[in-house]
Amino acid sequence: MLKILEFGKSVRPLVDDFLFKLLEGKPKKLYDAASHLPKAGGKRLRPILLLAITKGVGGDWKKAIPAAAAIELLHNFTLVHDDIMDEDEFRRGVPTVHKLWGEDMAILAGDLLFAKVFEAASKLVDYGVDHAKVVKIVDILSWASITVAEGQVLDIEFESREEVSEEEYIEMITKKTGALFKASAEIGAIIGGAPNECVIKLGEYGLNLGIAFQIRDDILGLTADEKTLGKPVYSDIREGKKTILVIHALKKLSPEEKATLLNILGKTEDINELKKAADLIIKSKALEYAEKLAEKYVKIALEKLEEACIQDREVYDMLKELALYVIKREE
Amino acid sequence: MLKILEFGKSVRPLVDDFLFKLLEGKPKKLYDAASHLPKAGGKRLRPILLLAITKGVGGDWKKAIPAAAAIELLHNFTLVHDDIMDEDEFRRGVPTVHKLWGEDMAILAGDLLFAKVFEAASKLVDYGVDHAKVVKIVDILSWASITVAEGQVLDIEFESREEVSEEEYIEMITKKTGALFKASAEIGAIIGGAPNECVIKLGEYGLNLGIAFQIRDDILGLTADEKTLGKPVYSDIREGKKTILVIHALKKLSPEEKATLLNILGKTEDINELKKAADLIIKSKALEYAEKLAEKYVKIALEKLEEACIQDREVYDMLKELALYVIKREE
Repeated sequence: MLKILEFGKSVRPLVDDFLFKLLEGKPKKLYDAASHLPKAGGKRLRPILLLAITKGVGGDWKKAIPAAAAIELLHNFTLVHDDIMDEDEFRRGVPTVHKLWGEDMAILAGDLLFAKVFEAASKLVDYGVDHAKVVKIVDILSWASITVAEGQVLDIEFESREEVSEEEYIEMITKKTGALFKASAEIGAIIGGAPNECVIKLGEYGLNLGIAFQIRDDILGLTADEKTLGKPVYSDIREGKKTILVIHALKKLSPEEKATLLNILGKTEDINELKKAADLIIKSKALEYAEKLAEKYVKIALEKLEEACIQDREVYDMLKELALYVIKREE
Repeated sequence: MLKILEFGKSVRPLVDDFLFKLLEGKPKKLYDAASHLPKAGGKRLRPILLLAITKGVGGDWKKAIPAAAAIELLHNFTLVHDDIMDEDEFRRGVPTVHKLWGEDMAILAGDLLFAKVFEAASKLVDYGVDHAKVVKIVDILSWASITVAEGQVLDIEFESREEVSEEEYIEMITKKTGALFKASAEIGAIIGGAPNECVIKLGEYGLNLGIAFQIRDDILGLTADEKTLGKPVYSDIREGKKTILVIHALKKLSPEEKATLLNILGKTEDINELKKAADLIIKSKALEYAEKLAEKYVKIALEKLEEACIQDREVYDMLKELALYVIKREE
């Protein structure tokens, strides 16, 4: 097992304990709906990243537990609201919140998770983090929330556009996925007491890691085993998402093939049609292209990591492992 | 003109200026949707309350502007999401966000407004508020957001119940409306440097003011002029809301009348039927009952105000005026 995942296994109970305690309350229905997704599982990559960095810059990672929970709450909030918009029915192997409780309750469950982000952050003072750092962390968390919302708007907007450039795609995933990894890394570094230049470098490590993570997500959306993935394959195609795979395929395919693909994207639920689109994408060598692209961002992440101030050799190796893991993972 | 409204008129441009600057950004569509409701108007009662209290306890109200904007952003966020759930088509005399931009964008616009609450709060340090106070304010803002979400769940749940007690109703509006007035008052007091006991008293003033405000809102939903109200009358009846008027009517009417009322509540859009329900409610003397109840809460608010530490006589009078205004207002 990778050292980073071993570290994750050891810190996860503490993060989850903090997180689930925050999600106890009344009306029961609201709190059941809000805790459904975090309880269903998830890899907890963002909190693990945050805590590893606190340790890596020489800090006490236990102090950062409320921040790790805050990041996971923020991530889960965005998933609950995104699933409503994308009309996704499964996530982490279970039905989505809006499928089980309806859209109104899913909106409110997401709002509650979002509010709990800031309750968690304000509890950092009880863990010995000074007030000035907590304010900085609140600022980063709000920045990340804003940026993720902007990214989600672009993601939706791209669905109805035929042409999306790779540059636009990278901007979208930088906002939608990169921002939260960046925030996790920065917050971990701040709590650990890293100097400002190092916080910035680690933020850039996180950002590029997040971009690579999202590219891998696009790949898994086409290639993964449905059970491992926890949601139906081809859902990106069904929803007409402009993944990097689709962008590449639309550029490389013949005019006829391109027309066929565009006629399927976001326009049908027929599994044979979706399969046809997947085959066209594969034919365009989009998977190979995306893998290379993900590697490019991992390389940048590793360069930033090299330049940062990770003193702890063991954690340095873990963060390196993490960067390689996000582009090799199967779930 | 009331002195509190004059004060409001003088502070409003500063709050709005801060608020609208926060709502500039890209993608344009997202920021247009998010700024739609604050730009459409609103009384800005919560920020005015907050700033008056900062002044009243001897503080510099200009320092509190980001907090005043934060409270207004939080209020507007809840309205945008509530309007989706209630399927309301008009608010402040203009179409609601989801009517103009669709539900997905309205969810995201609400999320953006919510995130901006905490961006605004973290900017308080630039206005000279110390870090410890800002953390406390973040904690209050997250508490208020959580409480409002809990109240909204109760509000929705009550729609499908025939029997709701007055006690349950008061719990619901305490959460849904009282909490945000309480938070406004407490935050204003904290920034102004009030001692803890005084912060608590002013919070109780705000809470009871908010309860009275909501009871008046129920009354206006039945009696107000549509144009002044900015939204259709009878929408509470159409949506089957268990307002204090409905709760009272269901208790006082004959079994036949009660059955007629229950058959209309939340079950028809026919204007004649809605009118019939309104007539039954009026017949039950619910309006008189609700007015008395609102007065009861204003009385409590004034008692708490008396016990608090408002040094500034002029502000004391303004806060008294405000308490009387919320139950007399026509819009």
